[in-house]
Amino acid sequence: MRAAVMRNKQLVVDTLPIPEPGPGEVLVKTLACGICGSDLHALKHAEKLVEISRRSGGAFTMDLSRDIVMGHEFCAEIVDYGPETKRHLPVGTRVCSMPVLIRPNGVQTVGYSNENPGGYGEYMRLTEGLLLEVPRDLPTEHAALTEPMAVGLHAVEKARLDKDDVPLVIGCGPVGLAVIAALRLKGVRPIVAADFSPRRRQLAETLGADLVVNPAEQSPYQSWREVAVWNDPASAPQLPPWVSGPPLRPAVIFECVGVPGILDQIMAAAPQGARIVVVGVCMERDSIEPMFGINKELSLQFVLGYTREEFAATLRYIAEGKIPTAPLITGKVGVEGVAQAFADLASPEHHAKILVEPWRS
Amino acid sequence: MRAAVMRNKQLVVDTLPIPEPGPGEVLVKTLACGICGSDLHALKHAEKLVEISRRSGGAFTMDLSRDIVMGHEFCAEIVDYGPETKRHLPVGTRVCSMPVLIRPNGVQTVGYSNENPGGYGEYMRLTEGLLLEVPRDLPTEHAALTEPMAVGLHAVEKARLDKDDVPLVIGCGPVGLAVIAALRLKGVRPIVAADFSPRRRQLAETLGADLVVNPAEQSPYQSWREVAVWNDPASAPQLPPWVSGPPLRPAVIFECVGVPGILDQIMAAAPQGARIVVVGVCMERDSIEPMFGINKELSLQFVLGYTREEFAATLRYIAEGKIPTAPLITGKVGVEGVAQAFADLASPEHHAKILVEPWRS
Repeated sequence: MRAAVMRNKQLVVDTLPIPEPGPGEVLVKTLACGICGSDLHALKHAEKLVEISRRSGGAFTMDLSRDIVMGHEFCAEIVDYGPETKRHLPVGTRVCSMPVLIRPNGVQTVGYSNENPGGYGEYMRLTEGLLLEVPRDLPTEHAALTEPMAVGLHAVEKARLDKDDVPLVIGCGPVGLAVIAALRLKGVRPIVAADFSPRRRQLAETLGADLVVNPAEQSPYQSWREVAVWNDPASAPQLPPWVSGPPLRPAVIFECVGVPGILDQIMAAAPQGARIVVVGVCMERDSIEPMFGINKELSLQFVLGYTREEFAATLRYIAEGKIPTAPLITGKVGVEGVAQAFADLASPEHHAKILVEPWRS
Repeated sequence: MRAAVMRNKQLVVDTLPIPEPGPGEVLVKTLACGICGSDLHALKHAEKLVEISRRSGGAFTMDLSRDIVMGHEFCAEIVDYGPETKRHLPVGTRVCSMPVLIRPNGVQTVGYSNENPGGYGEYMRLTEGLLLEVPRDLPTEHAALTEPMAVGLHAVEKARLDKDDVPLVIGCGPVGLAVIAALRLKGVRPIVAADFSPRRRQLAETLGADLVVNPAEQSPYQSWREVAVWNDPASAPQLPPWVSGPPLRPAVIFECVGVPGILDQIMAAAPQGARIVVVGVCMERDSIEPMFGINKELSLQFVLGYTREEFAATLRYIAEGKIPTAPLITGKVGVEGVAQAFADLASPEHHAKILVEPWRS
C-alpha cells in the first residue's frame, strides 16, 4: 500500500505491506485522516517524545529506527475481517474508531506504532469491538473529525462545569476550537477565547465563542473579568476577605496552547479560585511559580484523550450538527502532499485541519 | 512591650510601643503563639518572599527595612476595647482569631506587617468581629494550635473527599500532621503518610495515620498501592484501557513539604487520576514535567489558609478532643528564646511546635 512514512525523522512516500488483521480485528481502507499537531511535534521532537513517554507511561513508545505510519484522526471503510470476528457490519461500511487496538496482552496505539500503521497509509487494522458505524448522511470528512472533537468534549466533561462558570479558552488551534464547540454544546456561556491569529479568531467565532480577543491588543483575562461580573451580586459566593474588586463568576480556563511558559502565564493572570484545564500537550519540562497557585487557590486539571462513551457521543453530535466541523477543514492532500501539509500547518493563518486522503493519486 | 522583632533579617528582643486598637478593634495580651514554618522561611528568604508576594497578590508585602513582629498562631486575652466596639466579651476573656485585621480600606495581616505586631510580642490588636471565645476547659496552649490545625482542615475540605478515596500525606511536619488530624476527623481511611524523620513518623501515627512509611526504605507510592486495591473490584470505576495493574481506589495526595522538586516527584510517582492537594508552601520557582500530568490525568489543587467557618470549627473540634493537639507541643520559650527556637526547629527530630509565651520573664 502507499503511505506517507516517518523514516529517519522525515516524511517520505513509500509502498509498504498491507497490514494483516489479527483475531478480533478488521482490515479497513482509510478514507480520510486529519493531521494532528501532535504528529507535527512527533516528527520534530521524536527522540524527546519517545523518552518522555517511556518515563511517564505515555503512548509514544515506538522505535524510531524503524518505519512509522502516523495518523490517528480517521474515517475508514471495512475491507475485510480477520479471524474470530462477529462481522455485524457489511464490508464497505464506513466506520470511525478510537485509534487503539485492544489485544490480549494490552493496548497498542494506531498511528504511533511500528506495528500498526495509522491513517497516512491506505490501509489500517482496527479492533472490531471499537468500530462505530458512520451515519449514512454524514460526509466522510466530517466523520474524520470525531477524534479531535472528542478531545474537546472530554476536556469540557473533566471541567465539571457549573451553570455559573465562565470559560476562557487560551489558544484557538484545533484543540481550542474543539473545546469551544463542546462548551457551546453544553450551553455554558459566555465563552471567551483568545488567539494571536486573525484566522483562528474568526474560526473561534464561527464555532461559537461569544467574545474573541487578540492578546496583542487586550488582556484576555481583563476581557474575561468584564463579562464575568455577577449580575446579581447577592448570589455570588463568599470569597476570602483579601480578594478585592467586584464579585466574579467562577473562572474555568482551558489551556489549549501546549508550549512551555503558558501555564505560568495563565497562573499569573488567572483570577482567584480559577480552575485551569490543561488540554494543550506541552512535551517539554516547564517552570511554574507555585505561589501564584497558592495565593489564588488555583487548580490544574491535566486531561488526555476521551472515554469510549465520549468518543461515540462526539460522532453522534457531529452527525446531528451539534458539533460543527465543516469550518475546520481547510485542505485535502494525498500521501504525496503530507510532507508539504506538515510544513503548511506551521502557519496558523492558512490552515486549521488538513485531511489526508491516501487513496488520492 | 517586649517582643521578638525581625530587624535586618535577624531576630532581636526589644521594647516596642503597645499597639493602639482602632475602631472596631481590641487590644489583647498574647498568651501563647506557635512558631510556623512560614516564619522560618520569612526570616531566611525575606526579600524573595516580599517580591513574590507583590507579584502574586500575597500577604507578605511588608517593608523589610522596618521592624516586624511575626507570630500568627495565637491564643490571647482581651485587655482593652478600642472605639466603636460592641464589647460582648468581658476583659480577661481568652480568645483566638484569624490573623487578619478587617479595615474599611481592606484586609491587613497580623504577624507579617510593619503596623500590626503578631504573637511574638506581648500585645496585639485584633478585629473584634473575628474574635472566638476559647471554651473554659480548653488549655491555652491547645487553643493556640487552632490556626495551624485549621490549615489541615481547609486542605481536606478542598480535597472534596469521597468515601472510596485513599489519602497519602507526603511530609509529616506541622502541616502534614494537621492534614492527618483532619483526615482522621473526616473518617477517610486508611491514611498513608510518609516522612524521613522517625520523630515525625511517630507523631503521624499518634495523630491517626494508619500506615506510616520511611521513604528512605520503601516507596510511599508503592505502600499506598498495596492498601488501595479495591476489595470489591466490581465496584471500581472504568479506567482507560491502557492503565495496567489491579484496580485501585482513587488517590488523594497531600503535598506537605513545600520545597522545589517535590511536585515533580509526586507527579512522576502518582497513580492514574490522582488528585494532588498542594498544602506545602514552596516560595521558589519550580519545575514540572507536564507529560506526567497529561498521561495520568492528574490534578493539582493549590490551597491556602482557611475560611472563617473552618477556623471556628477547628477551635471547636480541638475543644471537643476531635483534633488532637497535645502531642504536637514540644517546647515553650519566652521572647528571648525565639531566635534559638527558630534554630532548633530546623531539625525535625527535636520539635514539632514550639510555643512563644511573651509574658514569660
